[in-house]
Amino acid sequence: MPTKLKKSVPHRTYLDESELPRDWYNIQADLPTPMPPFLHPTTHAPVTVDDLCGIFARPIAEQELTKERFIEIPDEVRALYKTFRPSPLHRAYNLEKAIGTPARIYYKFESNNPSGSHKLNSAVAQVHFNKAAGVRRITTETGGGQWGSALAIASKMAGLDCTVYMVKVSYEQKPYRRILMETYGGQVVASPSNTTEAGRKMLAAHPDSLGSLGGAISEAVEDALTHPETTRYALGSVLNHVLLHQTIIGLEAKKQMEKIDEYPDVVIGCCGGGSNFSGLAHPFLMDRLREGRQVRAVTIEPMACPSLTRGKYAYDFGDLSHFTPLMPMYTLGHMFEPPGIHAGGLRYHGVAPILAHLFHEGIVECEAVFQRDVFDAAVLFAQNEVILPAPESAHAILGAINEAKRCAQTGEEKVILFSLSGCGYFDMSAYKSYLSGDMKNYAITDELLASGLNSVSDIPIS
Amino acid sequence: MPTKLKKSVPHRTYLDESELPRDWYNIQADLPTPMPPFLHPTTHAPVTVDDLCGIFARPIAEQELTKERFIEIPDEVRALYKTFRPSPLHRAYNLEKAIGTPARIYYKFESNNPSGSHKLNSAVAQVHFNKAAGVRRITTETGGGQWGSALAIASKMAGLDCTVYMVKVSYEQKPYRRILMETYGGQVVASPSNTTEAGRKMLAAHPDSLGSLGGAISEAVEDALTHPETTRYALGSVLNHVLLHQTIIGLEAKKQMEKIDEYPDVVIGCCGGGSNFSGLAHPFLMDRLREGRQVRAVTIEPMACPSLTRGKYAYDFGDLSHFTPLMPMYTLGHMFEPPGIHAGGLRYHGVAPILAHLFHEGIVECEAVFQRDVFDAAVLFAQNEVILPAPESAHAILGAINEAKRCAQTGEEKVILFSLSGCGYFDMSAYKSYLSGDMKNYAITDELLASGLNSVSDIPIS
Repeated sequence: MPTKLKKSVPHRTYLDESELPRDWYNIQADLPTPMPPFLHPTTHAPVTVDDLCGIFARPIAEQELTKERFIEIPDEVRALYKTFRPSPLHRAYNLEKAIGTPARIYYKFESNNPSGSHKLNSAVAQVHFNKAAGVRRITTETGGGQWGSALAIASKMAGLDCTVYMVKVSYEQKPYRRILMETYGGQVVASPSNTTEAGRKMLAAHPDSLGSLGGAISEAVEDALTHPETTRYALGSVLNHVLLHQTIIGLEAKKQMEKIDEYPDVVIGCCGGGSNFSGLAHPFLMDRLREGRQVRAVTIEPMACPSLTRGKYAYDFGDLSHFTPLMPMYTLGHMFEPPGIHAGGLRYHGVAPILAHLFHEGIVECEAVFQRDVFDAAVLFAQNEVILPAPESAHAILGAINEAKRCAQTGEEKVILFSLSGCGYFDMSAYKSYLSGDMKNYAITDELLASGLNSVSDIPIS
Repeated sequence: MPTKLKKSVPHRTYLDESELPRDWYNIQADLPTPMPPFLHPTTHAPVTVDDLCGIFARPIAEQELTKERFIEIPDEVRALYKTFRPSPLHRAYNLEKAIGTPARIYYKFESNNPSGSHKLNSAVAQVHFNKAAGVRRITTETGGGQWGSALAIASKMAGLDCTVYMVKVSYEQKPYRRILMETYGGQVVASPSNTTEAGRKMLAAHPDSLGSLGGAISEAVEDALTHPETTRYALGSVLNHVLLHQTIIGLEAKKQMEKIDEYPDVVIGCCGGGSNFSGLAHPFLMDRLREGRQVRAVTIEPMACPSLTRGKYAYDFGDLSHFTPLMPMYTLGHMFEPPGIHAGGLRYHGVAPILAHLFHEGIVECEAVFQRDVFDAAVLFAQNEVILPAPESAHAILGAINEAKRCAQTGEEKVILFSLSGCGYFDMSAYKSYLSGDMKNYAITDELLASGLNSVSDIPIS
């Protein structure tokens, strides 16, 4: 069959703001088999909206459990989206040339806002629903800092207060991230802190503790639970409602690809909790699940924190203190402590339950990669596409480059679409480590893996 | 007269890449009185293209002195521009609302590339012309780091080597800027260095010298002069050819405003050397000079380095070692050392001769502002427009806010257009200083002013 003649594609394809999607897409409506339920942390009964309302505002709790296919984006959220969306779809002409591939590589550029990532998509939505429910203060945790920055920015835009528990090692090593949150009015607390019972316990056990994401989540949730009149908690990944909000990425990308008469053969994103990958992939997977359209979805995780490729499909907690529901996910265990790779946003022990389910069903694929290869890809991309990627996003870049190189060997003119979820302006120390030649490749030992998996529950996923 | 009904303006107005301008605009063709010539540093005769060719590649030297109105943008440069241009024109709806102004505020967003500023517009052009002339290595200086980053990026894109003399205080205080340049293959040398005669002299006189922009220029020029076979020098502002390349900003902005049926009453930009202000303003001033169109052009400079408002209109050198031509400009004297404001890019002792001439002729206006007011404006902008501005660009923001506030008092529905020339991701220590409340307002003393002006030449501008 002759290759279809393509019209000339610009470097960037935009949408008018009138083309901003009006609904988010909920893949739960189209799953071939239903997702296993979340379980109450103590009773182990399936969680209800009421169960979640202690931690989350009610509209968020409802979104978490709904199976409706499309959820309307409120006008107020669309108005805020318009300050930084629709985001452009880029054609990676220079990268294609550098690789020498017949593949056509596209990326959705999500980092053109000061949070530096896609996180603002859900932050703006969560803050809106909290405000609508009468919440006046929001708590959260942050590791690398993208999510904390996004929530601080969104809170400021809506006039809410925001407290961010920042993992102490990041608090100390990334002062600029902290200042960014403070510039947007966020109150930033180093975790473990003395202000929560969970923090005090951690400090008593390890006075010099540098903190962990699981520990910071516990502090942020406890803060919300102890201020029920004013305060709720917000999470930046993993949960269904977060993935739902992030589908704005893929919904826009579909419209943009339609404009240039393209459709991806493969969609690629990095995997921490799974929100940016899922946000890009779900709207395309809708076509596969509903219409049988051929499209692969591949997520890229670090060898140092290989939740999907080496984790256990089991019920596990999202945090150290067992405040969260038990969630069905691929997990390395909530006590797992990954090596200190530079992609801090990918150092979570589990993945989103929806992503876990899709992976378990063979609908999503996963590739685990080494850190130095990721930075080879990051620098090649930066030098050719004139954008400096975040280490997290560089995992997706590497996935796309690997796919494009395979096309160079086979001659296939595949259409590759990946998510450039974040920029690297706050990650220059990682680039320094790479340039100096002393960057390490981490893979986890069987001992480390076993020690983490010990903390996974023995409740079977039925 | 009734207010004209405006059609709905989107938050961002884009251009198709096919609409990228094909020519730069040279305001020298339309000056009511000719600009005084540059003078040879030793003979004091007007400089010729041949004079400039020792330092610059010939096509650059020719551009520096031409009076042609339009200079064609080579296809190769347009191809590179397409990786990061056309840049969007934003409507500052949120800022307008925060101020409560009837004015309509627009800004041209130039910092969506890893150099973090508009500097890449000229870097890409200069590297192209150097490469075309057989140059294999380019030298330059950098203070804040934007220009050095831009030249390193452009050099990598074209396959040339690049050496950046970075003012030592920045080299030490802004390691991330240095790493960024190194990520793009730039060789970064702390200035004063031991590798040039100029550097060795500075070190002999002041072994602990933290360097200065004038000194770094001397080193970069000397490096080029001593490697005539392979190397030329590049400057990031001040000179005519740099302003010429930057007119891409205003040429695009005009097309974008035309699309939304707008025309600015006032165009605003910050002033260091003057390249981003001039780049935005010249294409609009063309309409004023050729057709008598009503448009004001206002540049904003820091009280700490008030070249236009307190400097002398006189011939002066661009650098410490008198390598550059004598240029007719408003200058505080090439030996002037401004206080350490955070807007490092605005700490130059003079301004572009073209800008000086336009200011002298009353065609351009200038306002000097205090640092804390600048950061008030920066934070107000960041919190409302969801973009983190560079301290330099925040001067333009303050100028626009001041104008918009005046409109709030008079009820005038002015159209204000400013240049958002850079982002602040590498300036978080400045924001920290502001948030801590210990940021200083600097104005210069009469003594400091007099000591700087002592170094200005006594050659009259005829």
